[in-house]
Amino acid sequence: MYIGIDLGGTNIAAGIVDENGNIIKKKSIPTRPERGFKKVAGAMALLCKELILECGLSESDISSVGVGSPGVVDSERGIVKLAENLKWYDVDLKGEMEKHFLDGINVNIENDANAAAYGEYMMLGYNCDSFIFITLGTGVGGGVIINKEIYRGYGGCGAELGHMTLVHGGEKCTCGKLGCLEAYASVSGLINQTRTAIEKNPSSAMTKAYKEYGEINGKTAFTAAKNGDAAASLVVKNYIEYVADGICSIINIFAPEVLLIGGGISKEGDYLLNPINEYCRKNMFLKDKTPTKIAIAALGNDAGIIGAALTAKKR
Amino acid sequence: MYIGIDLGGTNIAAGIVDENGNIIKKKSIPTRPERGFKKVAGAMALLCKELILECGLSESDISSVGVGSPGVVDSERGIVKLAENLKWYDVDLKGEMEKHFLDGINVNIENDANAAAYGEYMMLGYNCDSFIFITLGTGVGGGVIINKEIYRGYGGCGAELGHMTLVHGGEKCTCGKLGCLEAYASVSGLINQTRTAIEKNPSSAMTKAYKEYGEINGKTAFTAAKNGDAAASLVVKNYIEYVADGICSIINIFAPEVLLIGGGISKEGDYLLNPINEYCRKNMFLKDKTPTKIAIAALGNDAGIIGAALTAKKR
Repeated sequence: MYIGIDLGGTNIAAGIVDENGNIIKKKSIPTRPERGFKKVAGAMALLCKELILECGLSESDISSVGVGSPGVVDSERGIVKLAENLKWYDVDLKGEMEKHFLDGINVNIENDANAAAYGEYMMLGYNCDSFIFITLGTGVGGGVIINKEIYRGYGGCGAELGHMTLVHGGEKCTCGKLGCLEAYASVSGLINQTRTAIEKNPSSAMTKAYKEYGEINGKTAFTAAKNGDAAASLVVKNYIEYVADGICSIINIFAPEVLLIGGGISKEGDYLLNPINEYCRKNMFLKDKTPTKIAIAALGNDAGIIGAALTAKKR
Repeated sequence: MYIGIDLGGTNIAAGIVDENGNIIKKKSIPTRPERGFKKVAGAMALLCKELILECGLSESDISSVGVGSPGVVDSERGIVKLAENLKWYDVDLKGEMEKHFLDGINVNIENDANAAAYGEYMMLGYNCDSFIFITLGTGVGGGVIINKEIYRGYGGCGAELGHMTLVHGGEKCTCGKLGCLEAYASVSGLINQTRTAIEKNPSSAMTKAYKEYGEINGKTAFTAAKNGDAAASLVVKNYIEYVADGICSIINIFAPEVLLIGGGISKEGDYLLNPINEYCRKNMFLKDKTPTKIAIAALGNDAGIIGAALTAKKR
């Protein structure tokens, strides 16, 4: 048995995971990063202990614990080098958590996007040599698997797929650069595009939904578009083209055997996937001769927990 | 001793290369692809024989021959799967060339950009785990070395770094997609940008140079900018920003230990490199904490010959 922990800025989700990557039981707590590194690490260890207890297990049943952490991670040493949203700089997360396990459970630290990518990679069983996972969530993240190994880049700084430029000189991204894929293809990007369309089209179904629910979210434009609203259809068409153009670039760069799309927006399924496939077949460097398979990811929010557990198992 | 061959659409350049990657003697002939695959392969074999003879060697002194070929290459089998500019589709280049060597010299086929990248990688001796080579030439090409191996992508289709989108919906690229890095950062892109500026600024030093020499080339704007011409300085500033933005994206994606810039434009040296470094330090995901070293490539036109020879040596 393994424990996988998906450490986020808001919540910590953990699960007991079996040899095959199935979650036996999961549990989550708020992160509250303001309490500081040591208390968050302690809370994660406690969460593990609770899961072990609630499953009627003991610490000796757990082969290792894997943590998917935001930021730049040195997985060899178990250090989080830089996680801005947690205000963690060069913290020994592995060492700090291991202090709490008296039976000597090994803790493995991996970047969260890498862990999720590895989870999808292992669970979908493609067993391919080159694999890309891209998430369309609050931001746009990604993980790259090359020769069956997570590609981390020099110093663990790689695979920031959301921060490739899509529009030179375009919208300002949260990273400070102009025109990043993330600024257009993330849920936040889509919400901005929806808001602009609502301002221009006061009679659109999006405007009605906004007035009714009091908020714009990643579904506002998709729902209205599916109901035939013209302004919403244009928002969705343009949004999907941003996503598809980014994916097309990633395929031209990596020519992966498989590219999976995850994150909240991926729940749109074929409604999202079909036009992406169409765009890519037309625009990839080798057009429909490019052998990459593009598909929707399978694990949803569990990818982080499962992937963290399986990276710990691998190590 | 090895022989490296840089097969281009216009010329075939070949050289005898020693164990350390030094060219002993080189020679080139026109490709004349219209004569067909078998004759071109035969001419490459003959070129090898001439080099061997002129160096006072015999075929048994040559450990192997490496060819850097344009297009999609299956290097395991020595097949060129698709080389549009040569009109080669699934041709057994290795088999065809080996027929001509009675002493059984082994021929190794590699994609030309990969071979050049491998040459730069080996000769500069960085010996790093992740390395990117990007060429600013007629097109924008590139090679990726990961874990000391050429990264080829699934089916040998990867590392088309010039065909990542830089300007969504922008200029049409030779590949058919809109807004590729190649359309902006190649010599052809720079010439287009220079031409537009000349039309708008009839009194610019670029216009004078154009009238004098009857052509616009990759140096027109750079030369005028260095002489203080304002319109040319703007062309160069914008051009370098395109290049830098593309390089910044590549670094965010790969976080390579070293990224080298080659191709004709790279002869501008520090005049090109300094603003690229400045742009990247400001705009990379981790800003000046990103550990990538950016530098100008060293081998110039010889990278293809040396790299082809060294990939053959490796295999």
